Amino acid sequence: MSETTSDAALRERAAKVIPGGMYGHLNAAIFAPGYPQFFVRGEGCRQWDADGREYVDLMCSWGPVILGHRHPRVEQAAAAQRAAGDCLNGPGPVMVELAELMVDLIPSADWVMFSKNGTDATTQALMVARAATGRTKVLVAHGAYHGADPWCTPSLSGTTPNERADLIEYPYNDLAGAEEAAARAEGDVAAIIVTPFKHDSFEDQEMVDPVFARGVRALADRIGAALVIDDVRAGFRLDLRGTWEPYGVRPDLTAWSKAMANGYAIAAVTGVDALRGPAQTLYSTGSFWFSAVPMAAARATIETLREIDGPALMERAGTRLREGLAAQAAAHGFTIRQTGPVQIPWLSFAGDATLDKGMYFSAACLREGVYLHPWHNWFLSAAHTDADIDRALAGTDAAFTALRAKFGAD
Amino acid sequence: MSETTSDAALRERAAKVIPGGMYGHLNAAIFAPGYPQFFVRGEGCRQWDADGREYVDLMCSWGPVILGHRHPRVEQAAAAQRAAGDCLNGPGPVMVELAELMVDLIPSADWVMFSKNGTDATTQALMVARAATGRTKVLVAHGAYHGADPWCTPSLSGTTPNERADLIEYPYNDLAGAEEAAARAEGDVAAIIVTPFKHDSFEDQEMVDPVFARGVRALADRIGAALVIDDVRAGFRLDLRGTWEPYGVRPDLTAWSKAMANGYAIAAVTGVDALRGPAQTLYSTGSFWFSAVPMAAARATIETLREIDGPALMERAGTRLREGLAAQAAAHGFTIRQTGPVQIPWLSFAGDATLDKGMYFSAACLREGVYLHPWHNWFLSAAHTDADIDRALAGTDAAFTALRAKFGAD
Repeated sequence: MSETTSDAALRERAAKVIPGGMYGHLNAAIFAPGYPQFFVRGEGCRQWDADGREYVDLMCSWGPVILGHRHPRVEQAAAAQRAAGDCLNGPGPVMVELAELMVDLIPSADWVMFSKNGTDATTQALMVARAATGRTKVLVAHGAYHGADPWCTPSLSGTTPNERADLIEYPYNDLAGAEEAAARAEGDVAAIIVTPFKHDSFEDQEMVDPVFARGVRALADRIGAALVIDDVRAGFRLDLRGTWEPYGVRPDLTAWSKAMANGYAIAAVTGVDALRGPAQTLYSTGSFWFSAVPMAAARATIETLREIDGPALMERAGTRLREGLAAQAAAHGFTIRQTGPVQIPWLSFAGDATLDKGMYFSAACLREGVYLHPWHNWFLSAAHTDADIDRALAGTDAAFTALRAKFGAD
Repeated sequence: MSETTSDAALRERAAKVIPGGMYGHLNAAIFAPGYPQFFVRGEGCRQWDADGREYVDLMCSWGPVILGHRHPRVEQAAAAQRAAGDCLNGPGPVMVELAELMVDLIPSADWVMFSKNGTDATTQALMVARAATGRTKVLVAHGAYHGADPWCTPSLSGTTPNERADLIEYPYNDLAGAEEAAARAEGDVAAIIVTPFKHDSFEDQEMVDPVFARGVRALADRIGAALVIDDVRAGFRLDLRGTWEPYGVRPDLTAWSKAMANGYAIAAVTGVDALRGPAQTLYSTGSFWFSAVPMAAARATIETLREIDGPALMERAGTRLREGLAAQAAAHGFTIRQTGPVQIPWLSFAGDATLDKGMYFSAACLREGVYLHPWHNWFLSAAHTDADIDRALAGTDAAFTALRAKFGAD
């Protein structure tokens, strides 16, 4: 077998015509060594890289794939719409049907606006809040990811101070900190934006403290600001009604994207009735925002998730994975932390601040045909059967063995 | 036939679940009375609304459709890619192939970054310019449309002063004005952004003065700023190499979207080699930016446009339309102006500042089965045959007759 894999050959070509050969969250150069950059096939919860290697996929393309690749019902709905029309001079009836479905499903949704990127939805939500309040500032949790526009990208490169000047940071799960941040804004808070749990990269995830969730709701009400939940990453995996619904905390606005159409490009903002008027005052649009095929795919995805109780299936798969990993770590003598909801899990090793063990482990999993991530949370789908999880666990067991040979037990 | 059309019934439902029933550039409420909101089918250069009415389409979904709906080669390329995989854990080989094609085709392109919306591309281009220069200000033509993010949306609703604070306006086609704007920035200009011609809504279009084009290129060089051409709207219709290539003026960065994949959602920034390093420093990404199907569609679209000389076909169709409209206006006794390139035309009536005639004319065209726009430029596609244009002209002739009956000749 040649040293030059297809992936290596593609990277060499890519380096000439794409800055750095790749960029953004799928840039394999920023994962662990050995990660393939290019992929050629997906089927259910399996993916194949450009060298034909098959993986049990625990990343789901960083969230979008929630029913598995090439899900028949979603593909049929998309194909039927495509045969009629996609990008037309107006939306199709499916836009109304999808909006009705979401308003029916999501208790905090009286209306929906569609777009393409998660960033479109978070940005649009803040615009609605600002239009409603006439205020400028937004309270945002330190280190939270809300997208990659200049106002929110984690890197300051290419951004200006003015583009960040309307943000005031608060510490996640710290209500006193959020109240202090609000006080600093001196009555000028348009919105408090919050992810449904803390899913920042490079660190353990943290579920929301229900006291904090209820507290920011009360804070927003007290200061007349909109509470915006950024459910782009977590949406549709824990609770189809919205990730904070089990806590009884309802937002004024929610940003959705990623999993809502099983990989088709779509995003949405849902909002309460009081914000309908302000939402109408925006000029917010895009060339492909009203295309019918992704809407047909979204409708089929959400209906399917509701019918099969997708979150319960992902909870079952995630629990099996979490229990299996816990048993393996104990058997191999490693102290691990598994954080976040089981449907969107992450694993870290005790005392591994440098991520040396995490990087080694994820690369070892990769060699064993299991695709997961060393410093970003993982995602399960409704396509992960017990057998798929067991196949993944066979790979992680071998990876723990390799890890022990390299680092020794804790 | 019932008073309640399908369109009316859909609007009634939409009003309950979508702010205003619709929003953005496809919101029919902001065109002329009588425009349908919902569309159900597209084929070549024809579209059908929710009540089954067929139109010769002169809007091409506001630009994206350039080869006609359901173009066999584009659909085949998309379907083949879809059968393998779309939204995977990394891009497909098609990302490299598409980037190579664009670098080969576009003289000012040494590299490409892909995204989803035209707004993503204009925003990303400014980020690259800012990363390269370490500067903050951007010179932007008064009234130009560069997208719908807070920094550029035509409405101030939902935006903050800080989000606009890094823009300095200049008058289009006014080199002294651009130089004055640059002077106001006192050495802090990261970029000059410019559309390849003036295509602002509600007014006659204006081709670029080649002296201005060469002048802003020289100005950017003199002050060390990047020249950014926003070719999102015009790209691929006048010259596949970039709309200013015939003038011999090459940008440092170009934003592309709309027509590049015949309706599939994709956008791109191309740039010169000197900006490759700065581009690598950005964190700019999106959940669906690396999906393979729109890239396969883009590759097929651009290759087809190159092989059939798409711009020449659109020029032929546009010239036939322009000449036909000119003859009809003269015959009916109206003084009209037809502005912009023939591939992206617009028609206005002399002394019609209120757009009363324009609105009436476009609504009359609609009733005659011709879809065009009263205050936004139109778009032709390579699917518009002589027979299609003649069919459109039959409709416009009847509309001129109706216009004369209503307003009398000039």
